[in-house]
Amino acid sequence: MNDATHAANATGLKVVGQRPIRPDGADKVTGRAVFGADVHLPGMLIGRVKRSPHAHARILRIDTSAARALPGVKAVVTSDDFPRVGSEALEQGEGSATLVDVADNCLARGKVLYAGHAVAAVAAVSSEIAERALDLITVEYEVLPHVIDVEAAMAPDAPLLNERLFTAGVTPRPTTPSNIAQKTVVARGDVAKGFAAAEVVHEGRYVTVPVHQGYIEPHACVAWAGADGQHQIWCSSQGHFAVRAMCAKVLGLELRDIRVYPAEIGGGFGGKTTVYLEPVALALSRQCGRPVRMVMSREEVFLASGPTSGGVVEVRLGAMKDGTIVAAEVTLKFQAGAFPGSPVGAGSMAALACYAIEHAVVTGYDVVCNRPKVAAYRAPGAPIAAFGVESAIDELAVILGMDPIDLRIRNAVKPGMKAVYGASFREIAFVETLQAIQAHPQYRAPLGPNQGRGVAAGFWFNIGGESSAAVHVDEDGGATVITSNPDIGGSRASMAMMAAETLGLPIERVRATIADTTAIGFSALTGGSRVTFATGMAVVQAAQRVVQDLKRRAALTWECEADQVEWRDGAAYCTDASKEVAPLSLRDLASRSARTGGPISAEVSLNAQGAGPGFGVHVCDVEVDPETGRTTVLRYTAAQDVGRAIHPAYVEGQLQGGVAQGIGWALNEEYVYDAKGVLQNPGFLDYRMPVASDLPMIDTILIESAPNPRHPYGAKGVGEVPIVPPLAAVANAVQRATGVRMRALPISPPRLLAALDGEG
Amino acid sequence: MNDATHAANATGLKVVGQRPIRPDGADKVTGRAVFGADVHLPGMLIGRVKRSPHAHARILRIDTSAARALPGVKAVVTSDDFPRVGSEALEQGEGSATLVDVADNCLARGKVLYAGHAVAAVAAVSSEIAERALDLITVEYEVLPHVIDVEAAMAPDAPLLNERLFTAGVTPRPTTPSNIAQKTVVARGDVAKGFAAAEVVHEGRYVTVPVHQGYIEPHACVAWAGADGQHQIWCSSQGHFAVRAMCAKVLGLELRDIRVYPAEIGGGFGGKTTVYLEPVALALSRQCGRPVRMVMSREEVFLASGPTSGGVVEVRLGAMKDGTIVAAEVTLKFQAGAFPGSPVGAGSMAALACYAIEHAVVTGYDVVCNRPKVAAYRAPGAPIAAFGVESAIDELAVILGMDPIDLRIRNAVKPGMKAVYGASFREIAFVETLQAIQAHPQYRAPLGPNQGRGVAAGFWFNIGGESSAAVHVDEDGGATVITSNPDIGGSRASMAMMAAETLGLPIERVRATIADTTAIGFSALTGGSRVTFATGMAVVQAAQRVVQDLKRRAALTWECEADQVEWRDGAAYCTDASKEVAPLSLRDLASRSARTGGPISAEVSLNAQGAGPGFGVHVCDVEVDPETGRTTVLRYTAAQDVGRAIHPAYVEGQLQGGVAQGIGWALNEEYVYDAKGVLQNPGFLDYRMPVASDLPMIDTILIESAPNPRHPYGAKGVGEVPIVPPLAAVANAVQRATGVRMRALPISPPRLLAALDGEG
Repeated sequence: MNDATHAANATGLKVVGQRPIRPDGADKVTGRAVFGADVHLPGMLIGRVKRSPHAHARILRIDTSAARALPGVKAVVTSDDFPRVGSEALEQGEGSATLVDVADNCLARGKVLYAGHAVAAVAAVSSEIAERALDLITVEYEVLPHVIDVEAAMAPDAPLLNERLFTAGVTPRPTTPSNIAQKTVVARGDVAKGFAAAEVVHEGRYVTVPVHQGYIEPHACVAWAGADGQHQIWCSSQGHFAVRAMCAKVLGLELRDIRVYPAEIGGGFGGKTTVYLEPVALALSRQCGRPVRMVMSREEVFLASGPTSGGVVEVRLGAMKDGTIVAAEVTLKFQAGAFPGSPVGAGSMAALACYAIEHAVVTGYDVVCNRPKVAAYRAPGAPIAAFGVESAIDELAVILGMDPIDLRIRNAVKPGMKAVYGASFREIAFVETLQAIQAHPQYRAPLGPNQGRGVAAGFWFNIGGESSAAVHVDEDGGATVITSNPDIGGSRASMAMMAAETLGLPIERVRATIADTTAIGFSALTGGSRVTFATGMAVVQAAQRVVQDLKRRAALTWECEADQVEWRDGAAYCTDASKEVAPLSLRDLASRSARTGGPISAEVSLNAQGAGPGFGVHVCDVEVDPETGRTTVLRYTAAQDVGRAIHPAYVEGQLQGGVAQGIGWALNEEYVYDAKGVLQNPGFLDYRMPVASDLPMIDTILIESAPNPRHPYGAKGVGEVPIVPPLAAVANAVQRATGVRMRALPISPPRLLAALDGEG
Repeated sequence: MNDATHAANATGLKVVGQRPIRPDGADKVTGRAVFGADVHLPGMLIGRVKRSPHAHARILRIDTSAARALPGVKAVVTSDDFPRVGSEALEQGEGSATLVDVADNCLARGKVLYAGHAVAAVAAVSSEIAERALDLITVEYEVLPHVIDVEAAMAPDAPLLNERLFTAGVTPRPTTPSNIAQKTVVARGDVAKGFAAAEVVHEGRYVTVPVHQGYIEPHACVAWAGADGQHQIWCSSQGHFAVRAMCAKVLGLELRDIRVYPAEIGGGFGGKTTVYLEPVALALSRQCGRPVRMVMSREEVFLASGPTSGGVVEVRLGAMKDGTIVAAEVTLKFQAGAFPGSPVGAGSMAALACYAIEHAVVTGYDVVCNRPKVAAYRAPGAPIAAFGVESAIDELAVILGMDPIDLRIRNAVKPGMKAVYGASFREIAFVETLQAIQAHPQYRAPLGPNQGRGVAAGFWFNIGGESSAAVHVDEDGGATVITSNPDIGGSRASMAMMAAETLGLPIERVRATIADTTAIGFSALTGGSRVTFATGMAVVQAAQRVVQDLKRRAALTWECEADQVEWRDGAAYCTDASKEVAPLSLRDLASRSARTGGPISAEVSLNAQGAGPGFGVHVCDVEVDPETGRTTVLRYTAAQDVGRAIHPAYVEGQLQGGVAQGIGWALNEEYVYDAKGVLQNPGFLDYRMPVASDLPMIDTILIESAPNPRHPYGAKGVGEVPIVPPLAAVANAVQRATGVRMRALPISPPRLLAALDGEG
């Protein structure tokens, strides 16, 4: 659908930009792919977790004796089985003591902080026995008052989750504890001066609720402790090096004591960047020496694994009548759940990143409350901030009587500008992305009654960071690419393609696989939209080293200088015409590699810089049923500044997937708590995610006019931007369809109906 | 026991030469190690092989229809399921067409060549159903005359195994087919002239029988074909890259279509350097799409997996009265089993390699017969040749009235000499090894009645070749070493130790693991005593690159030049005193690696040259019971030129293991065939291998006076030499104990009793 756009950017590339068959496809559709729960080991036990029924309570006593006595039970653990890692840091009152929190979230210590918080775990020869053992564990609680809502949690008299938590980022240092873990400020210019100059000021308060990443595969792992202290873990995660690091620290082990094997991963979206089960399974296995498998039920996924924050976003914009926004003030209050660590920092930086606003300030609050600890979710924090800012800009456009895209183009950041959060933008194509939506047929298509069209923009930083990759040439002239980033979005395809492009091979001759933590150098998480860029750069550099080596070997064969050898289309050519030699293909050189120095391989580890930010602009057409309040998305187009699409079909899939999740977030998804703070809808029947029949085909436009100059093939991250605009795009469309501005999500039928009734 | 010898060679090394805890120990003794048969996959089927009851027969028809119709049977294969790989080569009448033979040995095509030869295989949901399915496969045979004995097979009128096999290595090219696949000649000087000058000439004819490698773990694998043509194999082998290569060629696939995972290996000794089950399991899996596990029974291991050759060795020695051997003529006739490929080539080269004989010729014959195809077995060919040569030299010593070690010292090869087979010897310590045995207390200990003492020497080339290794530094300053050589003799220990030595770390901070075929560059087989040398060299070079990188990073941190940084004891020191900086440990540098360029890793692939040959000298004391003919080994000492022992306990274990196998070969092991050519003793109850109670503690002397200058720590191969001397050492001891010269093995009680009766 974007062939024209794509072809226009083609620059002699033969593999990059094509759409070869997905290497992960056959295994996934035939059931051969081994996910976390598919690992089977001899003598394997089943582990289960006992969870708190209370939202907030002190643990007075845990009695596991009856459970331990049950035949078939081989191990029982509580937080006493975790050493008190890094507890000094906590004593010092730091705002965030990540590894202590990770440990305490895996197995509660002293207090439970949300209904569903793990308090103990057992390993038994069957799941039935394990479940019976859980019932035999008795926990005495002193139930405490709880707090669920973010602003309620910020109140001075709110129930305190952690009496040693003092707000970081404020001076003077507070002397009374608070549920506000941190305050962050992003600012430039003089906001007061900006608002004083503004001809129009608009403000609004926007609210989102926590939503879950909703991956298909629940958390699953198998851990096997060795008698010699050498342990193995198989798990589905977004980073097995991170799993290794967290397990080592939670359990007080060295990194080299743990080998983590990556299973296939059935979706993560940020939610599989931390550990819940792995340290527990390993602790159980260490107690009994047998492998322990733990798999969450869907209910447990909802009760105890991370959603993203819900947040309150207060936006105040000051503009001139021509649409120039001269001042902006944004306040973000983000729920962190039971432990500090909401994405309010990223949200604060992303909030105004699309716009060149002279005077701006964004204040963020990271607030704990009695909910599961939040985890990363696609562009963490940015969708929440964008819901506020992009809704407010849409309201401003109405006030100013401007086309909402014209208003955004007037204020859009351009190459060479500095972002509000401080970064200098190099090659970016935000304006082109806005223009692409403005030029798209959807933007001018007629609408019927009860129908409306909304637009919104979105930004994500994208990151680089540490990655390792190796390229190995097979004896028959094929090549293998190896990385240590779990493939959650098609990275096996893109890695193989970039290697093939660099080596001059057809894609069919290159395979990509993912190695365990021992087999290749460190790589940071698959997340932050970093893999295609950073790991891809390592792959390309490794392939370039292989090409250098191949040229050296050809020169050796021809007895000429290496600089007299040219590499093209997978073969060495001698530029010294006097030699009169036939080209040497990769296959030729591979077959004689023993004579020219041995196997042909190269490994590269690097810390990639210059990821290049991404911008997206979405247009959404909805129809609202005034009888029921039900919103139907009729048509949706997402345009995005993608640098260069390595495998466009996967990139389109990323855009479509992000939009689908964003629509769910906008329209339906929410956690329903009862008065005791217990989640009432922990399952896909009651937690309403969009399914295929809820959505139209989502059209995509890949803007490739600004390939990333810091990446050999122009790649930048593409996976996170597309979830940023939909919340506001849908709300803006609903406003156009109904005249009602929905400033709180989800825009579910009862809420919208109530709003229609209230205002209609 | 050799601490003095070892300490004398210590040269500031801190890890190399120590005896740290075996990294493979705990997993093996606790049962956690995953061997080939321990792999379990969802939906896995059990594969079984139908085997020929005939030693030699034409296959007229195979009817698999009833087997296919049996419920629970999911796949049935015959050789029709293998493409006719490389059949052109066979048509051209080459002496050896290896891959065709490998395929035809896995599943017979046209003819069966030995009783036990595989003819078909099934995969079913249970082993019971698979066994029933085998019974339902009907095979019509035309039984042909067979030949078991090597000299009978060489006769012009012998039954021909392969009518397209013509003897290679003779001119003019033969026009009639033969069971002699190849003739090889190793020669120097003028043998006729040598014998003419000799004052004493002795000759003898020596016979060995085929013996099995006798590994504990039978062959086992799991294969899983992917719907997309991407296949996986888990197996116990001495080289998963070799398994990949053979499976790819047998099945007509590309290397990149197959990913092979190394299982733990329960012994190989050369016998797991080829494939029997893997291509069959993969063919079965391709037919049904499900994983197929195949495990040989012990009976199948004996019937159908490779023993080493039996051989006839004719030796003629010409010497001066002072003991100088001036001429030698050796003829080797080796059984290859059903397909060409006995180790007669290596045997011919090794036969006289210990001695500086001016005029010598060794002629070898590779002969097919109706037995299982031989496979490599520890120093392939050398023990057979040495049994002849070292027995003959012992007889010569008796004739000359010389001490057998003095005789050997007189003729021993020394550094700078050229071997009969052509190689130039550099640093070798054969004379020192002979002297070490001569000086050992055992050599002078008194003997009682019916007791005798024998000595013999042995040689093995050792090889280098292609290897890959990588060293990865963990974020916490530990390190991981990765290779692709299955660890059959302690290579995880030696690789970790060499890396630790190079990095300056204690061994506890380094782990070694073995990667699958995608995760690291190619490595040749674990065999030929090459791994500690060649793969070790790759490990050391990778560790050296890491050290270079660490120095560069320290220089970056200190803002000095890299050559102002010294690396010692795991830390960087600044030699620029003006800097006044504290040393940076590996841990320091690892923790800040993100800021100095990313993860710290290096991978090296090489083709290692200069392995350095090994020499062994053994002394054996026996007592023979004249009533029963039973020989008891009373005492045994093995000395060996080992270069430098990286982990002396493993090296000693190699010597002890080789001696134990050699004693079994000398005294008891043999294949018993009935008149129809069917093996009668395919099991450990009837095939008599020595057990612990049969053997004394075997003493070892590690000669480290000639560290290998081509290896950074002086290592050379040690695993194969120790099986070379025992056959003759035992026979020579028996001769001294009884006066009877046993020129045919095994020296089992009935045979020895018959000889005692015949000559006594």
